[in-house]
Amino acid sequence: MAEAETPNRSPEIRKDKIHNRWILFSPARSRRPSDFKAKSNPQPNNQTECPFCAGHEHECAPEIFRVPADSTNDWKIRVIQNLYPAVSRELDFQNPVSLVGDVAVSGFGFHDVVIESPVHSVNLSDLSPAQVGEVLLACKKRIEQLRSCDSIKYVQVFKNHGASAGASMSHSHSQMIALPIVPPTVSARLDSMMEYYKQTGKCSLCDIQPNELLIAESAHFISLVPFAATFAFEIWIIPRDHSSHFHEIDSEKAVDLGGLLKLMLLKMSLQLNNPPFNLLIHSSPYQDDPSNAPSTHWFLQIAPHLSGVGGFEIATGCYINPVFPEDAAKILRDVRIS
Amino acid sequence: MAEAETPNRSPEIRKDKIHNRWILFSPARSRRPSDFKAKSNPQPNNQTECPFCAGHEHECAPEIFRVPADSTNDWKIRVIQNLYPAVSRELDFQNPVSLVGDVAVSGFGFHDVVIESPVHSVNLSDLSPAQVGEVLLACKKRIEQLRSCDSIKYVQVFKNHGASAGASMSHSHSQMIALPIVPPTVSARLDSMMEYYKQTGKCSLCDIQPNELLIAESAHFISLVPFAATFAFEIWIIPRDHSSHFHEIDSEKAVDLGGLLKLMLLKMSLQLNNPPFNLLIHSSPYQDDPSNAPSTHWFLQIAPHLSGVGGFEIATGCYINPVFPEDAAKILRDVRIS
Ligand SMILES: Nc1ncnc2c1ncn2[C@@H]1O[C@H](COP(=O)(O)OP(=O)(O)O[C@H]2O[C@H](CO)[C@@H](O)[C@H](O)[C@H]2O)[C@@H](O)[C@H]1O
Ligand SMILES: Nc1ncnc2c1ncn2[C@@H]1O[C@H](COP(=O)(O)OP(=O)(O)O[C@H]2O[C@H](CO)[C@@H](O)[C@H](O)[C@H]2O)[C@@H](O)[C@H]1O
Repeated sequence: MAEAETPNRSPEIRKDKIHNRWILFSPARSRRPSDFKAKSNPQPNNQTECPFCAGHEHECAPEIFRVPADSTNDWKIRVIQNLYPAVSRELDFQNPVSLVGDVAVSGFGFHDVVIESPVHSVNLSDLSPAQVGEVLLACKKRIEQLRSCDSIKYVQVFKNHGASAGASMSHSHSQMIALPIVPPTVSARLDSMMEYYKQTGKCSLCDIQPNELLIAESAHFISLVPFAATFAFEIWIIPRDHSSHFHEIDSEKAVDLGGLLKLMLLKMSLQLNNPPFNLLIHSSPYQDDPSNAPSTHWFLQIAPHLSGVGGFEIATGCYINPVFPEDAAKILRDVRIS
Repeated sequence: MAEAETPNRSPEIRKDKIHNRWILFSPARSRRPSDFKAKSNPQPNNQTECPFCAGHEHECAPEIFRVPADSTNDWKIRVIQNLYPAVSRELDFQNPVSLVGDVAVSGFGFHDVVIESPVHSVNLSDLSPAQVGEVLLACKKRIEQLRSCDSIKYVQVFKNHGASAGASMSHSHSQMIALPIVPPTVSARLDSMMEYYKQTGKCSLCDIQPNELLIAESAHFISLVPFAATFAFEIWIIPRDHSSHFHEIDSEKAVDLGGLLKLMLLKMSLQLNNPPFNLLIHSSPYQDDPSNAPSTHWFLQIAPHLSGVGGFEIATGCYINPVFPEDAAKILRDVRIS
């Protein structure tokens, strides 16, 4: 990429007033390293050590906490600052000026990395259900810490696995971006769920009848292919009990979710040959309007990237999925994990 | 990709009621060929002939028209049916049933390909301004034909260049998908532009002050980097005169636009080393509410793909752009085309 000429500028969040969405401008991002040989080659390379590995802690941006808290070289999970953050914790946040013309605010926010294992080659699905649960609880803990910052409206937790799903580092990790705005996709989701609630008196996810879309169940969660899946073989994991915020999860449920998530990742990996994927936690804004509570229900999305997207999807927001959800669900149900 | 087990099913359009968007299910799509060696390798391969080349017309789905109309082997442009259509012209369209539960309609619509040159290795930017104008006029003609079908609400014209921008065929072409619904991104754009109009009494694109964001100008168009560009080095080309629909363009303006579009593609290609990109025409629905006419203004978007997107963008609809638009505009302004 051509070098921008003013690399030391602060990040800024601007409103695209034509599409009514926010864009994060972050010159620091163009300097982040990549340990994939080619951005578009999904195979991890032969490298066996990286800054996220145990023993390389000094190569990382500052640590926020580790698990277990009192561990030294034997940590299991580290939550650290992102060295090339999309938003900056050092800026003053001003509320967006609601001008008729162009709208921009400083790029205030928090961008953290959750290192899921001290070992370079260990994937999330290699961990035990309890260990996957620990990763989920580390995310919960960090979300609860960020809650104390009044300007933060929403925290997005996401994982990129494989270069064509966006990953620049192959060592297993997730990221969290805490934003001073509620993102457009989140608002649209809350609005749709409220609409359903108004029409039926029920939460759309509590009311879901998976039938032929069901993949598996655990004590507290169900996994299914959604009726209108955006991506081929997309999976949702939904808590059985109504709950608006992911960070309401307790330790028992986290381990239960850890088991079901591990099972889904193993099935997907076996059936689709370790595809690149994104793992997303869809939760609600911190200070959500209490009237939204009965209609909002958090869930987890696994989005495999089997084909790229093209101009049609970018232009329209409509996606083309070559696989019917009921076929994908049947295939995933039938995958046997030995 | 794993084979779905029911490959002969008809396409279907389903509503994702959680995100309030439409997904096109199209089993036929998984069978389309790709002449790129690896989906993720953006270099065209050494192949010199393909079904889109002159002399291979019989390998293509039926032709709709060619330019010049009376040409035989010496055609310049062919508009043909897509052999692996995302939507099908053979289905009966029923209006979506507005159930509270799941919503689905048959996948009715038209999916066409515009072959932009008879020669395999010729890019859109290799054509003369007048020839690029002819391609634009072929799109206009096809949009006007599709208008006679009452069930069609919107036509999306898009071009994928390079495998990581989605292209499966390297021979220069664009596509058009005519849909029985107005896509969510289009509705959102029309709503935002209406909002601006209500506040100011002006069209947001007529009112644009490009200043340091300007790249170049022609008699009837301006090109600029938008204030809140989604992609690094993104370019918009906007008609100076207010016009809601791309298909209102006349021959003189098409040639003028052809010249400016060619210049932008050459500058981008030179500066960014022939990056993958999407070219998108953002127009208005056919039967648009007449009250929208003063606020809607069509434009053309060039979106280079310099880095992929990751889970954050998919989850939130917020994009991270490492290059400030004013820096990108300066760089593109300064590129000299010899
Ligand atoms: N020593 C160190 N200490 C601390 N942090 C370090 C570090 N070295 C690298 N990092 C950070 O680690 C992160 C690794 O993240 P990922 O591999 O998931 O993808 P990345 O964020 O690069 O971009 C993907 O995800 C984003 C968001 O979805 C997309 O914008 C983008 O296009 C896509 O490639 C990077 O954000 C990087 O800044
Ligand atoms: N002999 C023939 N006759 C007629 N038509 C033929 C043909 N051989 C191939 N085709 C069609 O030609 C088209 C070529 O299109 P592109 O290369 O722009 O990308 P494609 O549509 O495959 O997918 C990209 O664009 C879509 C829409 O954005 C994304 O869904 C997808 O992920 C991305 O890869 C294909 O749609 C194919 O069906």
